[in-house]
Amino acid sequence: MSFHATVLTLYPEMFPGPLGLSLAGKALEAGTWALETAQIRDFATGRHRNVDDTPAGGGAGMVMRADVLARAIDAASPEGDPRPRLLMSPRGRPLTQARVRELAVGPGAVIVCGRFEGVDQRVIEARGLEEVSIGDYILSGGEPAAQVLLDAVVRLLPGVMGNEASGEEESFENGLLEHPHYTRPADWEGRTIPEVLTSGNHAMIAKWRREQAEKLTHERRPDLLATGKTK
Amino acid sequence: MSFHATVLTLYPEMFPGPLGLSLAGKALEAGTWALETAQIRDFATGRHRNVDDTPAGGGAGMVMRADVLARAIDAASPEGDPRPRLLMSPRGRPLTQARVRELAVGPGAVIVCGRFEGVDQRVIEARGLEEVSIGDYILSGGEPAAQVLLDAVVRLLPGVMGNEASGEEESFENGLLEHPHYTRPADWEGRTIPEVLTSGNHAMIAKWRREQAEKLTHERRPDLLATGKTK
Repeated sequence: MSFHATVLTLYPEMFPGPLGLSLAGKALEAGTWALETAQIRDFATGRHRNVDDTPAGGGAGMVMRADVLARAIDAASPEGDPRPRLLMSPRGRPLTQARVRELAVGPGAVIVCGRFEGVDQRVIEARGLEEVSIGDYILSGGEPAAQVLLDAVVRLLPGVMGNEASGEEESFENGLLEHPHYTRPADWEGRTIPEVLTSGNHAMIAKWRREQAEKLTHERRPDLLATGKTK
Repeated sequence: MSFHATVLTLYPEMFPGPLGLSLAGKALEAGTWALETAQIRDFATGRHRNVDDTPAGGGAGMVMRADVLARAIDAASPEGDPRPRLLMSPRGRPLTQARVRELAVGPGAVIVCGRFEGVDQRVIEARGLEEVSIGDYILSGGEPAAQVLLDAVVRLLPGVMGNEASGEEESFENGLLEHPHYTRPADWEGRTIPEVLTSGNHAMIAKWRREQAEKLTHERRPDLLATGKTK
């Protein structure tokens, strides 16, 4: 069974967007995964079909209504749907490659793209939405975040990477950033490839790459060393 | 002067993608920012116009060539171009809202979308590319990451948010995740809005929100508490 994504959004025309091209786009055409969108506004009622309202307790911004969003979720993902329900939100747990791998072996995902001001907490609780953050920055909406999540998942689906498969899957598995890469030409603007890489000594190459990865991680991401496998 | 983004990519047709709609799209039409793409392959030479080659020292995947990418960069961003040159890469320093704000007050950005296998280290050094990671997961390419970065930046440009402006800008400034939001209806599926929020007591509301934000951050992001202003 293929991976089935349903995206709930106020901007369905943003999809498939970048997911319609390259690896993800080919896999979409091939039926390796399926993508559908639902317009949240279609579930609003009243003359103005409002999907949001002012925050209880005051403050700036608007809040997405629980009732409208719940109707959209219930239509897209009836009881018994085994797919996790994700809400893209900077309040969420950070997305990791481990979570991406979990999603890729599952039946799909129902992805709610919130407005950045927020979603009524009651619908998050009542419909069991898992808040997912792609990083510590604020977007205009959840749509680009949903595309990032789906791109990360889809490339792991069986057959998607094909000849483009790479051993670099392990980037975040060994808790280190990747070592530097080099390729032809051997001399470029007077800059050469480190000798060890052209030595043919595989043990030395592996050692050099490991050292470089550790050095880079120390410099840029000491947080990974504190929590990773290297501890 | 408006914010000027140039994206170097093997998939220029992915742009503007989601950036052509909603806030970012309206701002693009209004001239608040400008977006152009350059096809890296146009700078390849030889019969096959190859942009990548096998990694020196062996291993899986392909590496983007320094010479081809340097020509693309030099054409898009001649000497004297004041814009930072970013390379979207999981090896980069994590994107933060602080860096997003810095970019938003600058002249723009030249954004290189790498293939995930990597880019020849020499062009990163020779052309001063700043490696930026949007999170600890692996994408099929840098394009969705570039769209995330640009979405985050563009919404901060003068006039873009207009009436949609929100006080929630500070989400990552005080080192805490956002408190829960509520809006009408007051009673939904038997779930009510916390009483304090409808009390009209602004001091109590502020205190409750702060406590909720602290509790949520403790549960989900203790790392923010360790490094944030709350320390």
